[in-house]
Amino acid sequence: MIIPNVNALSDEQLKEVTEIVTAFGCKVKVIRGQERHVYAIIGDERDDDMVTKLEGLPYIDRVDRIQSPHKLMDIRSSLSTHKVKLGGVTLGEEPFFCAGPCTIDPKNPNLTIETAHAVKEAGAHVLRGGVWKPRTNPYSYQGDTKALLILMEASRQTGLPVDTEVMDEEHLHLAVESGVNCLQIGARNALNYALLRQVGHAISGRDTCVLLKRSIHMGPVQEFISAAEYIVQLGNPNVILCPRGTQPALDGYRNHPDESIIPLVKERTWAPVIVDPCHAVGKASYVPAAALAAIAYGADGLCIECNIHPNKGIGDDPKQAVAPEVLRRIISQTRELWRIRRGVPGRD
Amino acid sequence: MIIPNVNALSDEQLKEVTEIVTAFGCKVKVIRGQERHVYAIIGDERDDDMVTKLEGLPYIDRVDRIQSPHKLMDIRSSLSTHKVKLGGVTLGEEPFFCAGPCTIDPKNPNLTIETAHAVKEAGAHVLRGGVWKPRTNPYSYQGDTKALLILMEASRQTGLPVDTEVMDEEHLHLAVESGVNCLQIGARNALNYALLRQVGHAISGRDTCVLLKRSIHMGPVQEFISAAEYIVQLGNPNVILCPRGTQPALDGYRNHPDESIIPLVKERTWAPVIVDPCHAVGKASYVPAAALAAIAYGADGLCIECNIHPNKGIGDDPKQAVAPEVLRRIISQTRELWRIRRGVPGRD
Amino acid sequence: MIIPNVNALSDEQLKEVTEIVTAFGCKVKVIRGQERHVYAIIGDERDDDMVTKLEGLPYIDRVDRIQSPHKLMDIRSSLSTHKVKLGGVTLGEEPFFCAGPCTIDPKNPNLTIETAHAVKEAGAHVLRGGVWKPRTNPYSYQGDTKALLILMEASRQTGLPVDTEVMDEEHLHLAVESGVNCLQIGARNALNYALLRQVGHAISGRDTCVLLKRSIHMGPVQEFISAAEYIVQLGNPNVILCPRGTQPALDGYRNHPDESIIPLVKERTWAPVIVDPCHAVGKASYVPAAALAAIAYGADGLCIECNIHPNKGIGDDPKQAVAPEVLRRIISQTRELWRIRRGVPGRD
Amino acid sequence: MIIPNVNALSDEQLKEVTEIVTAFGCKVKVIRGQERHVYAIIGDERDDDMVTKLEGLPYIDRVDRIQSPHKLMDIRSSLSTHKVKLGGVTLGEEPFFCAGPCTIDPKNPNLTIETAHAVKEAGAHVLRGGVWKPRTNPYSYQGDTKALLILMEASRQTGLPVDTEVMDEEHLHLAVESGVNCLQIGARNALNYALLRQVGHAISGRDTCVLLKRSIHMGPVQEFISAAEYIVQLGNPNVILCPRGTQPALDGYRNHPDESIIPLVKERTWAPVIVDPCHAVGKASYVPAAALAAIAYGADGLCIECNIHPNKGIGDDPKQAVAPEVLRRIISQTRELWRIRRGVPGRD
Repeated sequence: MIIPNVNALSDEQLKEVTEIVTAFGCKVKVIRGQERHVYAIIGDERDDDMVTKLEGLPYIDRVDRIQSPHKLMDIRSSLSTHKVKLGGVTLGEEPFFCAGPCTIDPKNPNLTIETAHAVKEAGAHVLRGGVWKPRTNPYSYQGDTKALLILMEASRQTGLPVDTEVMDEEHLHLAVESGVNCLQIGARNALNYALLRQVGHAISGRDTCVLLKRSIHMGPVQEFISAAEYIVQLGNPNVILCPRGTQPALDGYRNHPDESIIPLVKERTWAPVIVDPCHAVGKASYVPAAALAAIAYGADGLCIECNIHPNKGIGDDPKQAVAPEVLRRIISQTRELWRIRRGVPGRD
Repeated sequence: MIIPNVNALSDEQLKEVTEIVTAFGCKVKVIRGQERHVYAIIGDERDDDMVTKLEGLPYIDRVDRIQSPHKLMDIRSSLSTHKVKLGGVTLGEEPFFCAGPCTIDPKNPNLTIETAHAVKEAGAHVLRGGVWKPRTNPYSYQGDTKALLILMEASRQTGLPVDTEVMDEEHLHLAVESGVNCLQIGARNALNYALLRQVGHAISGRDTCVLLKRSIHMGPVQEFISAAEYIVQLGNPNVILCPRGTQPALDGYRNHPDESIIPLVKERTWAPVIVDPCHAVGKASYVPAAALAAIAYGADGLCIECNIHPNKGIGDDPKQAVAPEVLRRIISQTRELWRIRRGVPGRD
Repeated sequence: MIIPNVNALSDEQLKEVTEIVTAFGCKVKVIRGQERHVYAIIGDERDDDMVTKLEGLPYIDRVDRIQSPHKLMDIRSSLSTHKVKLGGVTLGEEPFFCAGPCTIDPKNPNLTIETAHAVKEAGAHVLRGGVWKPRTNPYSYQGDTKALLILMEASRQTGLPVDTEVMDEEHLHLAVESGVNCLQIGARNALNYALLRQVGHAISGRDTCVLLKRSIHMGPVQEFISAAEYIVQLGNPNVILCPRGTQPALDGYRNHPDESIIPLVKERTWAPVIVDPCHAVGKASYVPAAALAAIAYGADGLCIECNIHPNKGIGDDPKQAVAPEVLRRIISQTRELWRIRRGVPGRD
Repeated sequence: MIIPNVNALSDEQLKEVTEIVTAFGCKVKVIRGQERHVYAIIGDERDDDMVTKLEGLPYIDRVDRIQSPHKLMDIRSSLSTHKVKLGGVTLGEEPFFCAGPCTIDPKNPNLTIETAHAVKEAGAHVLRGGVWKPRTNPYSYQGDTKALLILMEASRQTGLPVDTEVMDEEHLHLAVESGVNCLQIGARNALNYALLRQVGHAISGRDTCVLLKRSIHMGPVQEFISAAEYIVQLGNPNVILCPRGTQPALDGYRNHPDESIIPLVKERTWAPVIVDPCHAVGKASYVPAAALAAIAYGADGLCIECNIHPNKGIGDDPKQAVAPEVLRRIISQTRELWRIRRGVPGRD
């Protein structure tokens, strides 16, 4: 819908608008109002470039889009019945749990191995662990490829599939070749379209999943879903969306918890949503409440930092990792709330 | 703690700092670091004016406060064991529910009366209903004092105590004289300190409660609790804090849901917190999930817009009021989650 | 423009929409698209209640408004040629300056009197000074009516008209009866519609001006202009809009400077805009740059805290008040930039 | 400064704190207050990992850092007298201008060549032009390497050095090998630390500059400066910081203009700052005012989209590129304001 800043376009203006719209395979239709006319675009109005050209005209106030810009991620797309499976769970059918240490300490492999056994016993389906770490401060620990071997050994011993973050093409290929089951795109890279495309290529033809974290600053839901479209358009639709808190932070948390975005995401896309409450609140004592709230809002699962000795963990462990017995309680409460939620009208 | 922007204060600077601090009954203590010195304030560092004077000195970078600025609302204050009671419920001991129409239509008294009976049957403890309405647009419906009579009649018929918003001294006195049990301060007036003081005076010596909504733009938790301190300092401590969403809105909701603030509020104050999910999300279909999330985060209860015929309601009813059967289901699910939550470590 | 969440309304749905729209004196017109239909509202679509009712229907996605909601403040309204005059200046024709202490210290009248003479000499047209103070902390200094006498005496001696903030009906009547020339509505009260109406009534039939500060959290431009509409609708159009920074603050400032809003405000309303850079940045050393930036963005003038002895000032003086010689330099630079700006295309 | 959430650490707690701090080469010093004790860290408190470990202890409320985390970018570092030179200008000594089309159209080389001549005549020192484009929508135009040849030809004909955005390692090497003088890191990649390091390596030992755009969501100033530290630590200090507006947008602009951040940046770092007003406001008619405001706040120059035929431009051209005669007027007004600003106290 084209809204001019004049009451009606002149013949010349309408001609100019029509030329632009026609070049993108659409038509214009005048809608005559009492005081003002507006102009409908008939056809596929999703092309950003058409909209930009129209909005660049000095007599156009704005162009309101009505269609979804997501061809594959859209809830009405051909993928709308696709189910993502990971760790033996079909996401959406039962609650899914991914857990493990924030960062794998290459100097202390036993800490990761023992934590892996503990999260499995607590009920987790997938083991997470950071091999490489994006850090604001360039002088902080940035990760170590040796940690990947520890993660894969923990996977072998427990039988749990693994999830780890990749930040560039080199990590990506190492992770895929090592058999990582779920590639995590961190919040800082959620708008790094070059990396998203590389990931899309790397997993094409495989059954690898991608856990796409929401950027800490991502505003509109559409931007989040568009980022996933970059991956899915290359052939593998196994993408999972992961809200993990945004900035600016709530006064006392590490970020602003964003589990409330879930109903808005689920209205627009078929993709499963799992929440990372640890990064959202940033402190272990707040995690159980935030985890339950995510399930209340309709999350399909949780991704939780857990460590048998948080104080010995590196990365954000000491602040935000819960102990295995807390993880077990969160999983148990989640399963109870999941059953209650089944009764919420319009949700399940 | 005073942080200078120089490595150490000169004798003259330290003398100037000491004079200011002494005038407010405090002392200064130097803390000698390797590279830089900082200066501790020994005494009651809560006075804003002392801090402002110190921060106005050209060689002071900032003053970090360590003590809470809330004398009565603070969780360690003399009021810390006070329990607010309303509608037969001691808040905190069992879930509390306030429900009713957004705005009472003075032309359709039966709609309010019948809704009142319906919310009572659904399990609500208090009947809410707007008599006067703050509106961004000065030409929209602004309320009508006649509606107060309808609200009180609904209270008489159902036995439910009532809650209504007051916006100025005239409303305040009408409401108190009519026997309104809970005075609501709306989000737009949460920073209107003149009104907060008038309310504090009006309820002093009575058992009237105040439901203080969070401003739609209130940032830090401290600002919210300070607003309540304006009321409580005048003698009546029956204040209930009510998050109801903030601006800017999440893309698709009316506001940005803010139930996640509850653990932060509860760490700092003893006051009960009930959440209004309807204003947060702005659309009836999202309310059940947001209500459950509030309980997950530790809310003591809910304030919910409910109408037997939302489409005939005025104000925000048509968008965000739920039907009585949905209210009943929310109440039932809340009670179940309340029991689950009891097991959350560190919460109950 | 009504956007359904279905491809086309059913006959029954269209009937329901038509009934609502007709009740508000408008008509509906179907706009048939290739895939989806949208529905134009023909008539005055500004009524919030009509829009709310439509958006409450389960099959309506949203209602996009095309007309301005401001009857009098709109740039195309009957008031569009109105010029506000204050302190001998017709706002918009030459740069306007209001200056003075943050808060008048009732115990030190000479500080205000001498500062008044200094700001006059520096080139200010109006003397500002706080008599009553809204404070987040209820235990901080809240103002003193005695300060009003000092302000009026400073006005008598210098011949400068005065500006002071009013926060409730009592202040309002004291200020109007004392002959205050410009009533300031502070940021915390910019959404206090009861007070805005009281001010509108009090100045009706007088030539008093109102300086309406922007709320520290006010989002959309429309909300700011609507607040002014509450005053102007009661008869006196001498309202001046005053951006003064918003929250959340920029990391290091007191607020987030918001002078960049000016071109957006000036596109929508005829009202003059003067900027308060002191509250925006919160520290005297940043004020000159922020003042110039306001003029760059098209401000009609500035409101600046100035004190001959900032360290002795109360309120926010010590941090953010500039010395008279800095005020003089700001005024001189403003006049130079005003002349440069005349050449900016599309601005003057 | 370590702030516990208890009045004083127990001997055991102090021992645990001391062990952590000692492991990072620091010492702890107790500061005894009247009611509470705090604990100073004596030594280099900048290590994030030490802070995280301390904050992970259950009895620690927070750790306030006093030192800057930037070793090289800090205004007091060894680089503090470094001057960046580009296009014949020593940044900071005279106003610097970079201008050119948003996106180079590979199908219309003449548009870029003619625009290059026009921006040179208008007074620009560097020619900008997008070869590759990051786009939210994966189906929009993503750029074309052929455009790089056009950009270099325009450089050859005009003698202007060139600036273009690189988004991955492949672009980076193509750009460096082609002789691009200034590599632009776009807002979406400002937190892509892998790319920042690749850029740092690629320019090490060359005199290439980097124009680092501020992320559209970057909050604190420190995060922006830390991103630059990633580049500079690899040997080449020719980095220029470029604010270009943040999200959420001001109601009517493309982004929220952020020129007001400049004084805060300049207090912390020696690096030059140039502003991109076009992306900030998103519409050509607002650009001249935003450009002047940037200079008022202390910008060392401007980066402006300019096109001889904006309507024929691709990318964001049609909306936000100014015509060459507007660029010429902005440059002339900037030079005048630069001279006025010299008189602003504490700035030059």
